[in-house]
Amino acid sequence: MSDKLDRALQAIDERTYWSAYPEHPKAYGDDAPEEGEASFQALLGSEFETGQGHDGFTAVDEDSPFGIDLGITYPVTTIDQVIGDAGDAMSSWARVSPRERAETCVAILDALAEDSFTMAHAVMHTTGQSFLMAFQAGGPHALDRALEAVAYAFREQDRIPDPLRWEKPQGSRPPLVIDKEWIVRPRGVAVTIGVSTFPTWNGYPGIFASLATGNPVIIKPHQATVLPLALLVRTAREVLADRGHDPNAIQMIVDPAGERIAKDLVMRPEVGIVDYTGGSAFGTWLEQNVHHADVYTEKAGVNSVILDSVDDIGGVFKNLSVSMTMYSGQMCTTPQNLFVPESGIPSAEGVISYGDAVSGFVSAIDGLLGDDARASAVLGAVKGEATLARIDEAASLGNVLSESRVVANPDFPGATVRTPAIVEVDASDDAYTHEMFGPVIFVVKTSSREASVEHARDAAKKSGAITWLAYSTDHDATERIIDAAVDAGVGVAFNLTGGLFVNQSAAYSDFHVTGANAAGNASLTDSAFVANRFRVVGVRREPKA
Amino acid sequence: MSDKLDRALQAIDERTYWSAYPEHPKAYGDDAPEEGEASFQALLGSEFETGQGHDGFTAVDEDSPFGIDLGITYPVTTIDQVIGDAGDAMSSWARVSPRERAETCVAILDALAEDSFTMAHAVMHTTGQSFLMAFQAGGPHALDRALEAVAYAFREQDRIPDPLRWEKPQGSRPPLVIDKEWIVRPRGVAVTIGVSTFPTWNGYPGIFASLATGNPVIIKPHQATVLPLALLVRTAREVLADRGHDPNAIQMIVDPAGERIAKDLVMRPEVGIVDYTGGSAFGTWLEQNVHHADVYTEKAGVNSVILDSVDDIGGVFKNLSVSMTMYSGQMCTTPQNLFVPESGIPSAEGVISYGDAVSGFVSAIDGLLGDDARASAVLGAVKGEATLARIDEAASLGNVLSESRVVANPDFPGATVRTPAIVEVDASDDAYTHEMFGPVIFVVKTSSREASVEHARDAAKKSGAITWLAYSTDHDATERIIDAAVDAGVGVAFNLTGGLFVNQSAAYSDFHVTGANAAGNASLTDSAFVANRFRVVGVRREPKA
Repeated sequence: MSDKLDRALQAIDERTYWSAYPEHPKAYGDDAPEEGEASFQALLGSEFETGQGHDGFTAVDEDSPFGIDLGITYPVTTIDQVIGDAGDAMSSWARVSPRERAETCVAILDALAEDSFTMAHAVMHTTGQSFLMAFQAGGPHALDRALEAVAYAFREQDRIPDPLRWEKPQGSRPPLVIDKEWIVRPRGVAVTIGVSTFPTWNGYPGIFASLATGNPVIIKPHQATVLPLALLVRTAREVLADRGHDPNAIQMIVDPAGERIAKDLVMRPEVGIVDYTGGSAFGTWLEQNVHHADVYTEKAGVNSVILDSVDDIGGVFKNLSVSMTMYSGQMCTTPQNLFVPESGIPSAEGVISYGDAVSGFVSAIDGLLGDDARASAVLGAVKGEATLARIDEAASLGNVLSESRVVANPDFPGATVRTPAIVEVDASDDAYTHEMFGPVIFVVKTSSREASVEHARDAAKKSGAITWLAYSTDHDATERIIDAAVDAGVGVAFNLTGGLFVNQSAAYSDFHVTGANAAGNASLTDSAFVANRFRVVGVRREPKA
Repeated sequence: MSDKLDRALQAIDERTYWSAYPEHPKAYGDDAPEEGEASFQALLGSEFETGQGHDGFTAVDEDSPFGIDLGITYPVTTIDQVIGDAGDAMSSWARVSPRERAETCVAILDALAEDSFTMAHAVMHTTGQSFLMAFQAGGPHALDRALEAVAYAFREQDRIPDPLRWEKPQGSRPPLVIDKEWIVRPRGVAVTIGVSTFPTWNGYPGIFASLATGNPVIIKPHQATVLPLALLVRTAREVLADRGHDPNAIQMIVDPAGERIAKDLVMRPEVGIVDYTGGSAFGTWLEQNVHHADVYTEKAGVNSVILDSVDDIGGVFKNLSVSMTMYSGQMCTTPQNLFVPESGIPSAEGVISYGDAVSGFVSAIDGLLGDDARASAVLGAVKGEATLARIDEAASLGNVLSESRVVANPDFPGATVRTPAIVEVDASDDAYTHEMFGPVIFVVKTSSREASVEHARDAAKKSGAITWLAYSTDHDATERIIDAAVDAGVGVAFNLTGGLFVNQSAAYSDFHVTGANAAGNASLTDSAFVANRFRVVGVRREPKA
């Protein structure tokens, strides 16, 4: 067994810090940045071959928030074709040992790691992430989450014993003797519906969990963010073929420009698994309509910051100014709501009034984003017209504390960059209980510290939530917040004032999404995420007398 | 940790033979049989107290296939009441440690074991099982399956590490340091919808998996088989209270006579888990309509016997005559179809013609059931009018090889006992591809040994299947049958001629139902059966500087 898989198995048991793929760009060698950029540039305007059979190339609705012209066309295929090829691949891939499947997955991840700079550019220019975020979250962090899923999938299959003899005593009579073996079989064709903002980080876990358990995977990338998963498919197919496996164990099918094929694809009876990350509407449709396949979703939520009591408010604002603005709030873990009690916030230097707290918070964000170059590095660019439109919508919902402004990106004049709209609403308003994905921050005025917790809980129960960030120096308040978080099924972080931001979820340690509220029905990664992707058929034999 | 739980954890890893509760009635002491019978007799015609709050007692539609008058009335309660009390119980039961929850479950099982004779009579007289089957399958075997589920549930929760410090190196800067803990929380109120034939064996795994993971359980027994699960509820509540826990962690609600409340109960938003065993219609309704809760089903299937080639046909018929008739075919694992190639069956003594094979099979069954006393011991009694009606329906579907006859039970003159109808059909007929639950056997004439396998596969893919029993002395044929079984998601046993019957599924070793075809979406017991019954909320804290 590879050392990497072995070490990952240890990591998911211990959940202490570990990483298999370095997050520092410098770890990849001096030539890597230039080679990666050149390789990305060569893809622009090209016909992208994944290695699948196809009927020419099609334009798609892919666009770049940095305003560059991608112009990449992708292989034309049909649902019949990919489903048929996946079925053929399953008959051989299902018979590969779980160990070799896991090793093959690791080999794919290693090959992807070598191309981390190409992937960084691909993720950056399709999602709008800044280069460093695209490099880390799109590359090594995504690879770590993938390896974590492979480790879970391998561990679960590896628990099934080897063939054995079962002997049941029968008192004075001879025992019942039966030879038993257990055969792991995949569930069926696995479909991954990609997301536009974190296609690899959110896509890899399901893709690799399915592959590692013997299911052939068909990826339908988000129509506006195709390239990152196309790179995965090309690399994975090469590695599969190199190791003597059918490369059709992984395939891609794109929406032709203006068409949407996801519903037809997932409703095929051959499909046994659907993984989805994206908006709630389609995720809920999948949960309610796909009865013939297991459906794993990560949808949307209303994440909250609860300001209860603090030591040093300066450190709080510094941390919040980054976590609430990075990548323009386009992370599923970005806090949207800041709950501030009208009675103010106890601190080491006395009570900070509501007004001072709010103005301090707004100043911290305005300060961080005052300079266009630094703002560009923090904000990245806005992906999608719908997200842009929500800025204006939000401004109409309350008292605008800081207007969204247009930022000029020094490197990409066509980039769509906006600072967040910071809008004050009352806890009695409905506005903040809906997700407003993107650069929108609600400051919610509450009647008390206790009320803040209840409003955060209610919003999470209504609309789902993935993360809470709470600041409290009070033991009872901390316990109350934890109880509410457990009840609402939301992960909670306390008193972050340093270099960790609540948005960040560490592979092998943090469970991403609890699966216990409307933000998603699955968790990255736990046993439940992998254990149903394969089934076990028992074979019993009576030995010859 | 109790030795029993410890040993069960070992058993689920090893899957070799083990049992925690003796299946021999004599192991329970000389006085146990008489005491158990007296205790059962005392229940007849009584008002059954479960210990729950209630508003009087109601008659139900419970009946005895042995024709005795049960006349037991059960507590009247409402969906609002049990859901409310379950919610209250959850707030404390969820905080009990997984270890104490598991130990409490074991204590409940031990208390049930002490009353095994009472349970045996309760199961016998509600389900129609013979006394010995009711004792074993309703008592110790069910307790073993329950303990298996508790072990799985404990193991899965026990994997979550204790609180720890996570340190991420930051090159030359100080590491990021975060204190992490993970809190296990239940999914919600768990509802078990009971089955009329094996209420404890099929009900306990889901009930105890939910209890062990912190979910309060509400049991809605089958309207015609209430008493066995009522005994469970009473005993479990006593043990819970004795250990200082809220007894409302387990409750029962019955259908008042002529009413059906299951749909209203499961659609309550507080419900997070539904376990169901029973007919396909309601099981499929649950799978398609309950989106707010996890649904675990064991429905129906078309189990098959494939006669490919044999050493000794006599041993084959002897085994089949029991497995295809015991408890009148009312086991979800009973083979319904016997596939016989028209070209006959190769044996050690030459080819046995189709005609000889069929007449030998029919003679073996007729011989076994020729004597009323022995037939009664094998057949038990028929539960439910619908099952009785299927005998006549089956006879109309093909060539009747052996007519169903009325058997007089020497001990219970009012018992409903019928020998199976054995009906010959052609593989081109549709009849045998549907489940005909009860005393119905189809002999299916096929064009070849290979065709038998394909027909069994097609029937399983169409209607689901839990078990295949195959007889083959040929290596290639064996491989072909295994491939088809894996494809169809059906467990398969080969060449049973001794004391093991295909119907029997051993706790800690055999996975019951694969979850990979229409016979059910869950397997007793695997990780997938328990891992989604709880969720994990992560708590991260930045340590004070």
